[in-house]
Amino acid sequence: MKITVFSEYGKAFREWKDVLSVHPHGLHETLKDVFSAVGEVTTVYQDDGDHCVRFTDDILNNTDVLVWWGHSMHNDVPDELAEKIAERVQRGMGVIFLHSAHMSKPFRRLMGTSCTLKWREVNERERLWVIDPVHPITRGVGEYVDIAHEEMYGEVFDIPTPDETVFIGWYQGGEVFRSGVTYRRGRGKVFYFQPGHETNESYHNEKIRLILQNAAKWAAPAEKILEKLDCPCVPALEKIAEEKE
Amino acid sequence: MKITVFSEYGKAFREWKDVLSVHPHGLHETLKDVFSAVGEVTTVYQDDGDHCVRFTDDILNNTDVLVWWGHSMHNDVPDELAEKIAERVQRGMGVIFLHSAHMSKPFRRLMGTSCTLKWREVNERERLWVIDPVHPITRGVGEYVDIAHEEMYGEVFDIPTPDETVFIGWYQGGEVFRSGVTYRRGRGKVFYFQPGHETNESYHNEKIRLILQNAAKWAAPAEKILEKLDCPCVPALEKIAEEKE
Amino acid sequence: MKITVFSEYGKAFREWKDVLSVHPHGLHETLKDVFSAVGEVTTVYQDDGDHCVRFTDDILNNTDVLVWWGHSMHNDVPDELAEKIAERVQRGMGVIFLHSAHMSKPFRRLMGTSCTLKWREVNERERLWVIDPVHPITRGVGEYVDIAHEEMYGEVFDIPTPDETVFIGWYQGGEVFRSGVTYRRGRGKVFYFQPGHETNESYHNEKIRLILQNAAKWAAPAEKILEKLDCPCVPALEKIAEEKE
Amino acid sequence: MKITVFSEYGKAFREWKDVLSVHPHGLHETLKDVFSAVGEVTTVYQDDGDHCVRFTDDILNNTDVLVWWGHSMHNDVPDELAEKIAERVQRGMGVIFLHSAHMSKPFRRLMGTSCTLKWREVNERERLWVIDPVHPITRGVGEYVDIAHEEMYGEVFDIPTPDETVFIGWYQGGEVFRSGVTYRRGRGKVFYFQPGHETNESYHNEKIRLILQNAAKWAAPAEKILEKLDCPCVPALEKIAEEKE
Repeated sequence: MKITVFSEYGKAFREWKDVLSVHPHGLHETLKDVFSAVGEVTTVYQDDGDHCVRFTDDILNNTDVLVWWGHSMHNDVPDELAEKIAERVQRGMGVIFLHSAHMSKPFRRLMGTSCTLKWREVNERERLWVIDPVHPITRGVGEYVDIAHEEMYGEVFDIPTPDETVFIGWYQGGEVFRSGVTYRRGRGKVFYFQPGHETNESYHNEKIRLILQNAAKWAAPAEKILEKLDCPCVPALEKIAEEKE
Repeated sequence: MKITVFSEYGKAFREWKDVLSVHPHGLHETLKDVFSAVGEVTTVYQDDGDHCVRFTDDILNNTDVLVWWGHSMHNDVPDELAEKIAERVQRGMGVIFLHSAHMSKPFRRLMGTSCTLKWREVNERERLWVIDPVHPITRGVGEYVDIAHEEMYGEVFDIPTPDETVFIGWYQGGEVFRSGVTYRRGRGKVFYFQPGHETNESYHNEKIRLILQNAAKWAAPAEKILEKLDCPCVPALEKIAEEKE
Repeated sequence: MKITVFSEYGKAFREWKDVLSVHPHGLHETLKDVFSAVGEVTTVYQDDGDHCVRFTDDILNNTDVLVWWGHSMHNDVPDELAEKIAERVQRGMGVIFLHSAHMSKPFRRLMGTSCTLKWREVNERERLWVIDPVHPITRGVGEYVDIAHEEMYGEVFDIPTPDETVFIGWYQGGEVFRSGVTYRRGRGKVFYFQPGHETNESYHNEKIRLILQNAAKWAAPAEKILEKLDCPCVPALEKIAEEKE
Repeated sequence: MKITVFSEYGKAFREWKDVLSVHPHGLHETLKDVFSAVGEVTTVYQDDGDHCVRFTDDILNNTDVLVWWGHSMHNDVPDELAEKIAERVQRGMGVIFLHSAHMSKPFRRLMGTSCTLKWREVNERERLWVIDPVHPITRGVGEYVDIAHEEMYGEVFDIPTPDETVFIGWYQGGEVFRSGVTYRRGRGKVFYFQPGHETNESYHNEKIRLILQNAAKWAAPAEKILEKLDCPCVPALEKIAEEKE
């Protein structure tokens, strides 16, 4: 399985102490470490104002499962790239959107909703409840995951009715959130997962790492990704008898 | 209820005999006649290469339910307009997509899928089966609707899992199609309805007219359309106690 | 709208101080007071070991929306009554299951799952988050409802994937719960709603009362309840041409 | 994988020429032949009026995936057996309901609806359209399956909104049907599949056999079937601070 991890890696990520203490080589390298357990990982990062030049067609076309983390540079992602990603998902590629990627162009493009929510950054506790104990993504996870510190994301989360609600998050400050949800878009599988604020340790939590690895295995296309999508004109399979007048 | 009917009305629609015999004043006027039974209707048409200049912000901002028919000029609809429509749906506007509008920019923007399908134009019979006999959209319709001549649209229809499957179509030539499906996108209701090829008489069929009128009533926002969507930062509702070390 | 409220009313309900202080005339009378705002209410109660003798066919056959509260006497409800209720729901009757009715025979009969969950009685705070702000059941409710004291019901709640998730509950002790969910079963609408432990004040909370009244209006059949359900043998609508040999 | 095939095998099945020509050793033996390709198959048959004496607890407790075909003896299946089956599905067993098993006690018990439909026996053609081309159940099946002769089952099929609609059937006589649908009930997977009238050749069709084999693999429990289901009382995970007065 070929996994491509995309993340922001601008000045803040390179220099901000609170991020460096958690992700010394960038969040993309932390995620590479997570996903290398289940596939061959390529990383792509977005630098300040570089408009995703590193995310070439060649990389996209060699991706089975795309992992996307973004936060402050969503607008620098070209519409064309978001469109290409959505179209490759429709042809069969799996995709995992992490944390603040809820506002990323590819996620909003695939959902069709505003993907807005409530939020708060006070390093509070989140408890991630497993709603579906036999879903492939929750295998081995147990009843819940305690996350010592996370950014709060609260309902109303403006997403379409999920195909599957896998996790619901509880927050110390009093909110709830559909923290893990799945969708099919065309032939591709989509997983959104809430944890992962850049200054928190979530991606070092063993259960979170297991969930992400499970998710990549789940999202991997079982069949060949289609070359293209089309609207074919087809002949009738039945003789079309003349109508009675 | 303020209903805006959008349709193409280019040279072909003005001059092509097969269309004029069914829609002498344009398809938008036929639809205006249908929807005037349930609301105040404004029509907007798209002329050859005019990029929807008639579809002003003012019209959109005064629309409770938008009805969209398009076929050969999808690409002339500006991305910005599709985006504005999607965003107004998310804030509460209802929208009805008709027939070949499955490939329109606003529909694809709201679905997140390719919306591709199979098709065939041989004026065959379609029988529209009511799958949900107590849905507001099927009130008074009976078990099925016989449509003497329609364009065939066949599965696989690449749409997200519908919130509700209201109609499934049977075609004389041997195909089936999820001909009437609903979605919620944000606060807005979406209905896709298959019948309506420009040279067929479907919008003159009394049962089809009833379905469309029912759909407009169903899609009308029950509450005020929001001014804007946002991602507010909110204070904690519970005291966040210090963690145990 | 004819509403029938069913509740237990055994020795405990008549004599237990903690219940009497909240429901001096029985929980069924408290609920009658809630629902009288939106319909004509009949109450039926179940006494210790009386096997629901008061719940006559005549009452059931005159019910548009049934409200069911039960806890410790589920097993005393005859299977035949549960079956009759399920069948009437399939024919169009609305039904609202409250709190510990998640383990009642009619609810389990309609869900097809075990309806098991986690629980705890320590009078903790529940905050009921509105997940769908434009659902008829949440009209006028605002972002959330604070409930000072409730029994905790926690996930995994073994229910089918809800048609609509209307509320998710947050508990002080650390759990979450899909506290308000809807289903269609045949032509009938089903709403399950978590609050309502017999010693808590939830049904005196103005927002909870509004939710229950909204729910009754939502669940009321829009069309006549069917006399019976059947599997008719039907003639072909199309001429069935002989096969090519 | 341990598969148990259940079918009727009364006087009619043993003596009726039209059945014997298709299923010379009984429908259960035909199905055993299908499923032996993917698991170890036990067959259980129901004889006229024998109330399923052969379906022992021991057999049920050694079943990973149950395949159920029934038609004219549904009422002879004890309620207790239907209840045990439903409960084992909730604990993780997979189950495949075939054709007229839509009216069987275990299926109706799991659905919560009446499962009624329209029908007609004139040996017409059914074309089974694949709605989900990347579902594990449709692997290798192609766009559709032509079935030369089948009993017609037509909408409205009174089932809950399917988790997944995998097949929709087209009938020569003019109807459509959701011919392949999936559900989760507790931890168990459920697949209903329309083809299989006792005098038709469907279970000898290679594509149908492939679908059934795929379905058994899909339905097999990925984790151990639970010993029991319960509603545990659990301690609070968070300190429950006293309320402010």
